[in-house]
Amino acid sequence: MTLRSVAIIGLGLLGGSIGLAVREFLPGVATTGYDRDGATRARAAERGLVGQVCASAAEAVREADLVIFCVPVGAMGEAAREVVGSLKPGVIVSDVGSSKQTVARELAEALPGAAIIPAHPVAGTENSGPDAGFAALFRNRWCIITPPDDCSPLQLTALVQFWEALGANVELMSAQHHDLVLAVTSHLPHLIAYTIVGTASDLEEVTQGEVIKYSAGGFRDFTRIAASDPTMWRDVFLSNKEAVLEMLQRFTEDLTALQRAIRVGDGQQLFDHFTRTRAIRRGIIEQGQDDARPDFGRSDHIS
Amino acid sequence: MTLRSVAIIGLGLLGGSIGLAVREFLPGVATTGYDRDGATRARAAERGLVGQVCASAAEAVREADLVIFCVPVGAMGEAAREVVGSLKPGVIVSDVGSSKQTVARELAEALPGAAIIPAHPVAGTENSGPDAGFAALFRNRWCIITPPDDCSPLQLTALVQFWEALGANVELMSAQHHDLVLAVTSHLPHLIAYTIVGTASDLEEVTQGEVIKYSAGGFRDFTRIAASDPTMWRDVFLSNKEAVLEMLQRFTEDLTALQRAIRVGDGQQLFDHFTRTRAIRRGIIEQGQDDARPDFGRSDHIS
Ligand SMILES: NC(=O)c1ccc[n+]([C@@H]2O[C@H](COP(=O)([O-])OP(=O)(O)OC[C@H]3O[C@@H](n4cnc5c(N)ncnc54)[C@H](OP(=O)(O)O)[C@@H]3O)[C@@H](O)[C@H]2O)c1
Ligand SMILES: NC(=O)c1ccc[n+]([C@@H]2O[C@H](COP(=O)([O-])OP(=O)(O)OC[C@H]3O[C@@H](n4cnc5c(N)ncnc54)[C@H](OP(=O)(O)O)[C@@H]3O)[C@@H](O)[C@H]2O)c1
Repeated sequence: MTLRSVAIIGLGLLGGSIGLAVREFLPGVATTGYDRDGATRARAAERGLVGQVCASAAEAVREADLVIFCVPVGAMGEAAREVVGSLKPGVIVSDVGSSKQTVARELAEALPGAAIIPAHPVAGTENSGPDAGFAALFRNRWCIITPPDDCSPLQLTALVQFWEALGANVELMSAQHHDLVLAVTSHLPHLIAYTIVGTASDLEEVTQGEVIKYSAGGFRDFTRIAASDPTMWRDVFLSNKEAVLEMLQRFTEDLTALQRAIRVGDGQQLFDHFTRTRAIRRGIIEQGQDDARPDFGRSDHIS
Repeated sequence: MTLRSVAIIGLGLLGGSIGLAVREFLPGVATTGYDRDGATRARAAERGLVGQVCASAAEAVREADLVIFCVPVGAMGEAAREVVGSLKPGVIVSDVGSSKQTVARELAEALPGAAIIPAHPVAGTENSGPDAGFAALFRNRWCIITPPDDCSPLQLTALVQFWEALGANVELMSAQHHDLVLAVTSHLPHLIAYTIVGTASDLEEVTQGEVIKYSAGGFRDFTRIAASDPTMWRDVFLSNKEAVLEMLQRFTEDLTALQRAIRVGDGQQLFDHFTRTRAIRRGIIEQGQDDARPDFGRSDHIS
């Protein structure tokens, strides 16, 4: 099947980036978009994030072969209910939410009978809103698609090719496995970064000014992700609660072990642990998911 | 007093960067250097990290007005003992160690009667060894000096001006306060990064390949610092044990509170916490200790 028209619901970082990427990499595909925030709609029209910004979600989806919900995970059900009765037959309904089991369930409840194929492009920045998006966001990044068991192969292929056209490498897995993998690679790191930045700002003996001043010693690496959108992350933690709590439990056990090694002065255990973690970093650089160059290779992604 | 000759003991990232920076910014000052590793000495000579690479620490320090120990914190005492009896009268003895109370004590024990003024340039990368150093490492970074109570004002001024010439902004504080500030801005972040990278590589349900593949979701920000030198960090945790354990305790309490909020579904608490942490990030960017640009401003530091 050929996609002729894509509707994007939610015109923030992800929605805007998809719109810009379609314009650049799939110039034959029309885009429509909707956001519940009037100011965001106006800014989206100014930046040309989609070909046509519509006044309602129902209007935006009417001609679409593919509808992508790009709203916070906790708003997926509500956003989907606005398009009930307006979808074209044969439409593919997808999303970009950072957790997948909950979202799949909520979209299915809101749109019974629709062909729903959830997806999650593992690409983002700490910025949000209609000014944050850029066409190269998905380039050389993974997009995980979590097709349901009864998924149409034709529709699945169309969605895979759509993401590949935007520059992503596509991987398929179950929603359950996705939620476990992302709990460790994304959700737990965000929770910990949010925590440590909070801890540092509450100290009495060390001022916030000092924390900022000496952040180059390691702390600043955590602050980038701790500046991520609060609504998005509240929703992620609540929607992927079980996997996050499971991973957090493991992390806490490991931290307790290192804490004990420090307390009893077990230098060998510390050394062995720190040596092991180096290997992972090398793997990430080799696989191009980060970069040893001073700018982390980010210049590749920006024109 | 005027510094004519600086001796650098330990020619890795820090020692090499100081040597290169002196050559660039203080061309009238001679540099000598020593490292216990023969291969490092050979490479240091090839790269010209110092004007003269010496065969012993005693020889390196003989003419120096300033001696800087740039070895891991746990090796400071041993390295200092090698220069007993070889120091010039009036020499300033300093170091770059990441913890200061222990190092000050060990240098004083090894070199009784010497004028010891410990320092810590809060600048580094995850690389180590004689190939890692570069002259611009200290530019626009803080250097904390922790002068003892009986410190000579003239010598202190000379050391301050030395670091300023290398591009650093100098701040004075007590060794005790330094250790607390760095425990939160540097040591705790490293400990946590080391922990989470270890946790992620031990999972059975999620493969190491998957962790690497999807690291762009946040995990990769932690891996950079978890690739730091194991010897250096073992020594830092053991030498700044009390402050690190204290900060870890606070962190654990805060993490437990967020864990509970997730478990009971308290979205408001999560949202409020995440909103608060954003402000710190803004402070860091405004004060130039990091950068919102896609390359984090690292291009400023590299020629
Ligand atoms: N940011 C990342 O790094 C990243 C990466 C991968 C996936 N994701 C996922 O992508 C999705 C969007 O994230 P984002 O970063 O693009 O967030 P964003 O920049 O905040 O954009 C979301 C937009 O959706 C709008 N919205 C909320 N509820 C809506 C509704 N019911 N109908 C229409 N529009 C609605 C929001 O408007 P208001 O401002 O009025 O709320 C906002 O403009 C989330 O599910 C997130 O989990 C994010
Ligand atoms: N890396 C950072 O980000 C950073 C930042 C600020 C401060 N610091 C501090 O700077 C110091 C040096 O760190 P670095 O990153 O430069 O480490 P590095 O690159 O590993 O260099 C340290 C060098 O010292 C040598 N050495 C060890 N013991 C010695 C001894 N007794 N006599 C002579 N040389 C000896 C080591 O040789 P071997 O290889 O044979 O052990 C190595 O070549 C540490 O105290 C650290 O806490 C580091």
